[in-house]
Order: sequence, then C-alpha cells, then structure tokens
Amino acid sequence: MIELKVGLHERSYPIYIGEGLLDKPELFVPFIAGKKVMIVTNETVGPLYEQQVRKALVGFDVDTVTLPDGEQYKDWVSLNLIFTALLEKAHSRKTTIVALGGGVVGDMAGFAASAYQRGVDFIQVPTTLLSQVDSSVGGKTAINHPLGKNMVGAFYQPKAVIIDILSLQTLPKREISAGLAEVIKYGLIREPDFFQWLENNIEALRRLDSKALAYAIKLSCACKAEVVEIDEKEGGLRAILNLGHTFGHAIENFEGYGAWLHGEAVGAGIMMAAQLSYLQAWITEADKLRVKALLDRAGLPSYGPEGMMAKDYQRLMAVDKKVMDGTLRLVLLKNIGEAIVTNDFSDVYLNKVLSGQLL
Amino acid sequence: MIELKVGLHERSYPIYIGEGLLDKPELFVPFIAGKKVMIVTNETVGPLYEQQVRKALVGFDVDTVTLPDGEQYKDWVSLNLIFTALLEKAHSRKTTIVALGGGVVGDMAGFAASAYQRGVDFIQVPTTLLSQVDSSVGGKTAINHPLGKNMVGAFYQPKAVIIDILSLQTLPKREISAGLAEVIKYGLIREPDFFQWLENNIEALRRLDSKALAYAIKLSCACKAEVVEIDEKEGGLRAILNLGHTFGHAIENFEGYGAWLHGEAVGAGIMMAAQLSYLQAWITEADKLRVKALLDRAGLPSYGPEGMMAKDYQRLMAVDKKVMDGTLRLVLLKNIGEAIVTNDFSDVYLNKVLSGQLL
Repeated sequence: MIELKVGLHERSYPIYIGEGLLDKPELFVPFIAGKKVMIVTNETVGPLYEQQVRKALVGFDVDTVTLPDGEQYKDWVSLNLIFTALLEKAHSRKTTIVALGGGVVGDMAGFAASAYQRGVDFIQVPTTLLSQVDSSVGGKTAINHPLGKNMVGAFYQPKAVIIDILSLQTLPKREISAGLAEVIKYGLIREPDFFQWLENNIEALRRLDSKALAYAIKLSCACKAEVVEIDEKEGGLRAILNLGHTFGHAIENFEGYGAWLHGEAVGAGIMMAAQLSYLQAWITEADKLRVKALLDRAGLPSYGPEGMMAKDYQRLMAVDKKVMDGTLRLVLLKNIGEAIVTNDFSDVYLNKVLSGQLL
Repeated sequence: MIELKVGLHERSYPIYIGEGLLDKPELFVPFIAGKKVMIVTNETVGPLYEQQVRKALVGFDVDTVTLPDGEQYKDWVSLNLIFTALLEKAHSRKTTIVALGGGVVGDMAGFAASAYQRGVDFIQVPTTLLSQVDSSVGGKTAINHPLGKNMVGAFYQPKAVIIDILSLQTLPKREISAGLAEVIKYGLIREPDFFQWLENNIEALRRLDSKALAYAIKLSCACKAEVVEIDEKEGGLRAILNLGHTFGHAIENFEGYGAWLHGEAVGAGIMMAAQLSYLQAWITEADKLRVKALLDRAGLPSYGPEGMMAKDYQRLMAVDKKVMDGTLRLVLLKNIGEAIVTNDFSDVYLNKVLSGQLL
C-alpha cells in the first residue's frame, strides 16, 4: 500500500492507494469520530462495493443513501436526498459521511458533508479512475446548476482518501479512458517525465495493469496534492489543474450533463488548449501531435461535438469560473509539462480553435 | 457611529452601528474587491431601502435579486433564485453579495455567498432588530430543511456588517419584540448587568429610542463577537448562544415556518429553559419570575403554542443539532447572566416543562 499526505495544516489528510483496501477497518476507523456513518453511493457502485465497505465499519451504526448514477443527477435534488436520509436517521454533527463512488458521488457527498449542520466529517472512497486521480483529492466539492457546471459548492477537505485499485476492474472501458484524460493532464501541466512515461505505458493502463495503475495514480495524486498544498482555494496556481476544463465544461453543458463523460470533454478540451498554444507558437507542431497521439491512444476524443459552434462555446464559456470580470482566462501550454493561466492570447486564434479549424 | 470588531484572524471584520449608514459609500467600498455587486433583498425591504444602498454603490455594476419575504421561504428554491441571478448576470468569483434585509435574507445570502463558485465575498446589511443583534454577526448561514431548521448551511464570515438603526423605524412592532428575545438572551447567558439595564429600559427600546437602541445593539453585538472569537465553529462555548433555541426551533417547525416569528419562538423557549433551570433548583423562583416579567414587557410569548404536546417537542427536538449521538443537550441557566450547555437534567422535569405544567 502506498501512503501520500496532503499537507494543509489542521486539515491535512492521508491518501491510501492499494489493492483490496475497501474492507480494511484500520484505514477507516481512525477517521470516524462518532458512532454513526452514512455511506453515500449510487445505484451502480452500491451493489458492487457497499457490503465490502460495511465490513470495514463493523461496530458503527451505518446507514446508506443510494443516488441515481450520472452527471445529470449532480444537482440539488440528489443532494437533498442525502440531507433527508441524514435527518430521517437522526445523524448528528458527529456523523461521518463515506463517499463511495465516482466523481459525482464524491462531489455531492463532499458538498453535503460541508453543509449538513454546517459541516460534518467525510471520507472519500473513489471507485473510478477519474475520481481516484483527481476529484477525490483537494477538497473541491459541488453540484451543477442548469446555467453552469460546479457552480454551487464548497472547498471542503476529506479526513482521508482510500483508493482501492481493484475497484477499477468493474469499471467500463469508456470510464477508464475518461480517467486517463486527467492523468494526461498532470503530465502536461507539470510533469514532463510522467508525460513521457504515459507515452510508454498508456496501453498498460488501459488493460488495467496493476503496477502501471498504482504508479499513475500515485503520480497523479502527488501532483495534485502538491498544487493544492500551495494554493488550496485557487487564488493562483491551482487553476492550472483546469487545463482543458473551460472548453470541456462548455461541451458538457452543450450536450447535456451525462451525454459526454467529464473526462471525455476534458480530453477534447486539452486538445483545444494544445491547439491554441500551438497557434500562439508556444508549443511546436510536434508537441501538439504528441498530445493528439496520446489522447487517441487513451481512447479519448480530440474534437468537440459535431454541431457545436464557436458561438456555443463562447456563450457557455462566458459563465466559466475562470472568467474574471468579463475577461476569459484559459489554461494553456508553454511546453509539454508547463502550463500557464492567461488572458493573453489571440481572439482570432481562439475563434479558429472553437470553430474546429486546423485540428 | 460605533465600530466594533470581530477578531477572527484573516477572517476578521468590522461591525458599524449608527443612524443613516445605508448610503455611505465609505462603509461599503473598502469591502468590494471586484466591479460587480449583487444585492440580495426581499419584497418588503427592497422597496424601502434598495435605492438608498445603491447610492452607496455608485460606480459599481449593481444587480438585485428580490426574494419572497418570510421564514417559510428560507429554502432551496429561494437560494437557487440567488444562484440563477448571479449566473444570468455573469457574476464571477470576484463579485460581492450585499445581504439587505432580516435574518432570513442574511442567512440565505450568506449561504449563497459561501457556495457560489465555492465562495465569494459578502456584506451583511441587517434591517431588522433580530438580525442586527444576532444573525448578521458570527458567520452562521443556512437554509431550512422540511425535517429541521437551519440544517443545511455553512460557517462563513461576512467582510463587514453595516447596521443602520434608522431602518428599525419601518419595522413592525411584532418584529421589534421578536428581536428583543435575542437581546434578552445575551443578558441571561453572559451579561447580568445588561439584563438589569434591560429591566430598566425595555420600554425605551420598544418605542425605538435611538440612544437605548444603539446601546442594546452594541452590547449584543459585542457579546456575540466575544463568544464567536472564542469558539467560531461551536465546538463548545458558542452553543450558549442557543439559549431557548432548541425549544424554539421545535415550535417553529411544529407551527410551520413563518407562523411564529423566530424571536417569538425563542422567547417561549427562553422561558422553558428558565423554568427547567428553576425546577433543577439552579435559579430561584424570583429569578424565574424576572425572566417572565421581562419577556412579558418585551411583548413576547412565554408559553409554547396551545395544542403542542410534550411528544411533539420530543420528536422535533430529536433532530436538533445539539443532540449528539442520541443525547439531548440543552442550554440552561445557573444564574441570571450564566448559562451552561448540559445533558445533566431530570427527564421528569423536562417533561413537566414540555407539558406546559407549572409555567
């Protein structure tokens, strides 16, 4: 088992990565202050892993709330199911929420933990690649609003993150690819050696080779932890983690949440960022093609949806959180392994990218 | 003008108390980081004071969202009106929310500020006595859930609190009385001299004597600030601010939010706490009668609603946030000016109080 630490003073917490961790009481119990636990899961993950987690929680009074599965349910209605379950089962401020599922479950359970009685403890148990390498670490929680993704939420750190690589065995291949978009992102923004490693190991990851997975998840979590430690609330550096996300969120919103997986939209968004960076002459054509080749091999789209026009992107990107007082800021590449957040790019080039030209 | 400070390190903020503060730019401008401001108000307060506040905000891009008035609207639907307005008007992370209204507006605008894009700045401009002496200070924000009051929210401090005593001139008398319940609370939990002062000045407060009001608001805010500075997130001491509230929340819930004003329910709740404290032989009968006399003179109920039975209280109090893992903890009095939070009271006496006996 690998143990990492996210160092945030009194809000620091460990990340455990390994095989068969879901039913290990010693990983859960130190982080449960009261007698009651509420497992938040969804209708897909619950039947697969809830009983295993309950084994780790013997001796506690454990309830479960099961949400519908899918990004389109990451809304107030599902969030309120969590609050209702907590209140119906008389959970107090001392309860602990266990988020068992992918990014949607983690985001909702985490936001519910931040808001229930103004804040209770929670543990992240991510079961998808995307949530294991990205959304379970760093304390960003949120629900979507019809007018924008992740617009309502909180910065709220978990007490621990427990990553069981075995849970990826039941994950659809499409979701493995989606998770790889965030893995590739770390290589691109900060870890050139890791990007190269990915070029050599992407197929091993897709066929769920445990050693490769453990390494990629460890590198991803360590990279994220490092960024979050420097800039927890996204005053600056942390924004680089959003490479591809401004484009990606627009795609998700345009298509309707759930139609494209988050990671798929991020994959296309990364390619758009690479393309714009290339047009700006910040990265070489060869590097742009390296990005495209790796996305292709990961099974990810490198184009936005057909029928999505530049004006659609512009309208939807205007509500992005990185638009500050009317100025669109984007995460772009100065190199493979070096990202910047900037509003200093050509609108003409942006428009070319949004129109799908030259891709 | 009086200036107090709530000392919470990097989250410290001033409280300004005086007459005619609503249109003073110098009180608002230092706390607005961006170009945009969203005024959150309600259909009663907006027509009276929105234009005045807009005068203080000349030069900013100001939008307004107007909520329905009443505790029964302190829910997700109203909260979402704020998010929708912010998104429709393209407010970024750098926006500032101005909460203009009573406790309900402040609680909702504050929670919206905590959650919109995971946190934006906000300024409290409380216009009711209750919000001026209590809810605008200390960072507790929340909405109600059908199964319990204030069950979903955040600890989130404002950047400033601007209290214009003149706004009380338009407040219904019933709401002045409701506000006095929280004022009396401070005397009872921590300020015996202030309690005595209230016994000498309660009529002056009810007829809105400015000097008396300024003094009572200052004392109340200072007492609250002191408690919050010691225990921001209610790990211990802060719970004494809930004197009367566990009973009061049950009354509000039983009657339907909005039927009883929050302060009225707290008034009855304070009397129930005094009665239980008397049965425990912690306070004298004379002191209990002093509490009753002051509540009466303040125009507050000292009984719960007719038809509300002990079992109704018990059921509704079971979801109170101060119930920890099944144990009901109450704020009770050891003296006029000295409160404790305890589960060490007689169930028989509690039942007598809940049954309305001996009151």
